[in-house]
Amino acid sequence: MGSPSSRITLAVDAMGGDKGPSEILAGIAKSASFVPRDLEFQLFGREDELSTLLSNEPSLNDLNVTVHHAPEVVEMDEKPIAGIKNKKKSSMALALESLKEGNADALLSCGNTGCLMAGGTIRLRTLEGVERPALCTIWPGRERYFTLLDAGANPHPKPFHIVQNAILGSNYARVALGLVRPKVGLLSIGTEEGKGNELIHDAHEMLKEIDGSIVNYAGLIEGFQIFENVVDVVVCDGFVGNIVLKACESLSKLIGSFLDEELKRNALRKTGALLSMGAFRGLKQRINPEQFGGAPLLGLNRNVIKAHGSSNRNHVSGAIKIALDLVQHDMIGQMLEDVKGANEILRPFHSPPTQTSN
Amino acid sequence: MGSPSSRITLAVDAMGGDKGPSEILAGIAKSASFVPRDLEFQLFGREDELSTLLSNEPSLNDLNVTVHHAPEVVEMDEKPIAGIKNKKKSSMALALESLKEGNADALLSCGNTGCLMAGGTIRLRTLEGVERPALCTIWPGRERYFTLLDAGANPHPKPFHIVQNAILGSNYARVALGLVRPKVGLLSIGTEEGKGNELIHDAHEMLKEIDGSIVNYAGLIEGFQIFENVVDVVVCDGFVGNIVLKACESLSKLIGSFLDEELKRNALRKTGALLSMGAFRGLKQRINPEQFGGAPLLGLNRNVIKAHGSSNRNHVSGAIKIALDLVQHDMIGQMLEDVKGANEILRPFHSPPTQTSN
Repeated sequence: MGSPSSRITLAVDAMGGDKGPSEILAGIAKSASFVPRDLEFQLFGREDELSTLLSNEPSLNDLNVTVHHAPEVVEMDEKPIAGIKNKKKSSMALALESLKEGNADALLSCGNTGCLMAGGTIRLRTLEGVERPALCTIWPGRERYFTLLDAGANPHPKPFHIVQNAILGSNYARVALGLVRPKVGLLSIGTEEGKGNELIHDAHEMLKEIDGSIVNYAGLIEGFQIFENVVDVVVCDGFVGNIVLKACESLSKLIGSFLDEELKRNALRKTGALLSMGAFRGLKQRINPEQFGGAPLLGLNRNVIKAHGSSNRNHVSGAIKIALDLVQHDMIGQMLEDVKGANEILRPFHSPPTQTSN
Repeated sequence: MGSPSSRITLAVDAMGGDKGPSEILAGIAKSASFVPRDLEFQLFGREDELSTLLSNEPSLNDLNVTVHHAPEVVEMDEKPIAGIKNKKKSSMALALESLKEGNADALLSCGNTGCLMAGGTIRLRTLEGVERPALCTIWPGRERYFTLLDAGANPHPKPFHIVQNAILGSNYARVALGLVRPKVGLLSIGTEEGKGNELIHDAHEMLKEIDGSIVNYAGLIEGFQIFENVVDVVVCDGFVGNIVLKACESLSKLIGSFLDEELKRNALRKTGALLSMGAFRGLKQRINPEQFGGAPLLGLNRNVIKAHGSSNRNHVSGAIKIALDLVQHDMIGQMLEDVKGANEILRPFHSPPTQTSN
């Protein structure tokens, strides 16, 4: 599984997301232009609903799509553990099951993030040598895109988890951003050694040990540097990462609303805005790039891709491209190798990690 | 000192900031329209330089300005403790000294934030009952401004510090934003009880105890809610607050640059942008409001206001207005009362706090 020559299977939670299954199917249809002809889409969801949608979408006939009945749906507002444990017949749970059993190479869901993270962590094994998974996101920087992790999977990491996130994020940046030696920065509140906190200090020391051999570690960075492409992989704990991600997403939206209000304030401004329309569309696409529709939950022994709940067909298609790239580049195999190498080097720092989930 | 009827003295670190003392003096000149006629500006800096500037700025003649020679300057890139300890004759250190000795009611500096926070903490006493100061910032929200603290003064708080920050921030919001019962939210990564971390959990329990009597506590909030005016005072630890503040400041700048680039991409867009010029100016002013030019270091027994290093005269004048308001409303006296009340209620939670600095 996962080697470039073998057939790839993608499990899709077809019921998750704000726009419903029709938008997800439209995203799959859009992906026809780049997916291998023998790639299998396993659609999990209500069979009758999905079959009707499929028969109305002739462009899907050329694709290898199978429908797997899942009578339940994890709603967007359900609590993480409860949502996944109580709905064992949900589209999300059954897609995870297919992945776990080795019947799929990657899973894509636009559903409830907390439930998918909990489900992925509980139902799938972590990679050998990795203790906790991390949610990895792609952000727009001044000159190019960068990755930030952990965006919320592990809010109480140990220093060793932070180091593993650097390895996981580097491997993801190689595949998703096409970088050969992505630069890694550790997010803190000052770049002098000794600033920050104990977690930062210990992780910084360990990252220096694996710099060069396993990751390309550029040191500590501050909040104002993350968008400046000082590094390609911003590593932080899941508490900070989740807050920064959500604050920044919501600030972008706020600025968009302010701009919209200001442009509508009088006739002159409205006329100007009409002429400049292309600029505002361009801005939106740069801030919220559709080609990076998915964020992977890294550190598991299967590829789990979370697309935004509000994903449109272009985001879904972008997320499918990412899932495909991860499988074709065997990201997981490369991560395994790097984690093993790092654990060797860092043995003096810690007792060997144990698997936490099954 | 500090009562509405007595003469107010404002110590000004005239050498700090990126634009130099002439911009600070221009800001003082702008404040002539609202400061009491007998307010004294104590300017700390190089006497010859300041005297020359003063003689060239006739609008300052109507104000009560005194010059206090300080031969040294704390540079913007100096390290916090070193900068303040090694330069005992700097404009920042001598202004702090004047404040400490009770010769001034408030201090304003556009200089090195780290050095001012370290200097304030080391040289001034904390308020009785308060253990650690917090840097409090004002942010633009969808409908109105809100405050966020701690923006970096205390990166390793105990739960009790977080609770004190809620009290300090509420008092600041009353004066600076004119709110009667500002709503307080505790920043976390989920609003269910039990999410977040131990610090959040313990602070949340303590905040519930003083809700109603001391603060108006609205509970936990998430990163995506901070700009939505769900609360007026966002409380978080200084590590998270500093990173979020700097990330959001830098994201605003990035979006501004993207918009600028997009608008210049062709002649049509350029023409539109000219017509809509007022909208872009309006946007800028909403995102970076000059009337809130200063961020106070709260929890000390004197008012210390930090203005941004890049402050222009309007920001300086805004910061002077804030300093004046804090003194005239006796914010410190009100804080003392609230902290005392909270410490009574919270006695079961902790051993009594001790003063950490002198």
